[in-house]
Amino acid sequence: MSSSLTQNTDGRRARGNKARAQILAHSTIIASVEGLEGLTIGRVAAEAGVGKGNIQVLFGDREALQLATLNDAVEFYKTTVLEPALGKETPFARLLSFVEGWYAFVAARTLPGGCFISAVSSEYRARPGRIQDQINAHRKSQRATLRNLIIEAKKAEEIRADIDADMLVFELLAYQAGANVASLIGDEGDFALARLASRCRLDWAAVTPRPYAG
Amino acid sequence: MSSSLTQNTDGRRARGNKARAQILAHSTIIASVEGLEGLTIGRVAAEAGVGKGNIQVLFGDREALQLATLNDAVEFYKTTVLEPALGKETPFARLLSFVEGWYAFVAARTLPGGCFISAVSSEYRARPGRIQDQINAHRKSQRATLRNLIIEAKKAEEIRADIDADMLVFELLAYQAGANVASLIGDEGDFALARLASRCRLDWAAVTPRPYAG
Repeated sequence: MSSSLTQNTDGRRARGNKARAQILAHSTIIASVEGLEGLTIGRVAAEAGVGKGNIQVLFGDREALQLATLNDAVEFYKTTVLEPALGKETPFARLLSFVEGWYAFVAARTLPGGCFISAVSSEYRARPGRIQDQINAHRKSQRATLRNLIIEAKKAEEIRADIDADMLVFELLAYQAGANVASLIGDEGDFALARLASRCRLDWAAVTPRPYAG
Repeated sequence: MSSSLTQNTDGRRARGNKARAQILAHSTIIASVEGLEGLTIGRVAAEAGVGKGNIQVLFGDREALQLATLNDAVEFYKTTVLEPALGKETPFARLLSFVEGWYAFVAARTLPGGCFISAVSSEYRARPGRIQDQINAHRKSQRATLRNLIIEAKKAEEIRADIDADMLVFELLAYQAGANVASLIGDEGDFALARLASRCRLDWAAVTPRPYAG
């Protein structure tokens, strides 16, 4: 069934995907530390050890490379944190794993600059355009995921019916924002407080509340 | 007792203070919106309608003008929010007024750029120097004030003995940081959630807890 033409196309596609992945591995690390504005085709070419022309063929212009890097970092976070969480047995366990997974992700410096979306949200807060739109879409999506996990846990009667999902989402994201800043400036005390505060909010929201661990 | 020399000196000092206050009123508004980096002696001179030489005589160099503006904004906040709070009768009332006062201050756009310290903390997070040191000193002082108000309310048995002051401080400041960003990007929903979350944390920490208002 598959002609030699198809095989050649598949082979080229596989090589192209591998080259893209290799370049994105470098661009994600650069952008994690220096921001998406730190990315230029020349810089990424030099660090990845490939020609500038290759990057242009594989990605297009600089903005396309920035967008691909942003999406790659988010995909990496989803694979590392969200997917394992979604594999847990109950809605509350999925929610807890998703929230705690973020702290583990940042604490382990899985990406050297901490939470990628937090960093670029700050970087692009006053720069309208396609990159800002894409950042906002990712933020909205992450927020919706967190909210849905809370709603599911309420439906399963693992979280109390009187808990306001939007407020709990706001609180958990506020702690994460505080923790990300704390982590980057090396304030381990505040990072630990944020992690504990998140855990306490979830324990408190649970149908069987545990005592405040403060 | 007072010689004419002293009277002349006092008169000059009064005129100098008035001129300083007039210039700081302009520089604080500029810095609130554009950051302390938006301040140059020329820019402030033009907006305040005074000569550049006057500003140099009254303040010194550009950095001295930036530091004076920072300190003036903090003093303004203290006069507007902290002092009225400290006039309340009980420790818990003082704490509540201090926390709610911050939200009222930002919501009313008392300064056009919202919370001055939040804005310049972000602006100077990677710029070591005298301005960053002064910002950090103000942050530390505000944090200590909040912590002391919580400790006093615990001592007065208005806040429960099992409440961890450091964690409550972290939570309240995380909500403020989230609220300040929300306010600046026009997200009134998140601002309201932050305000409500703060109030709920304090009500929850009170010896006679009120139900979660979410």
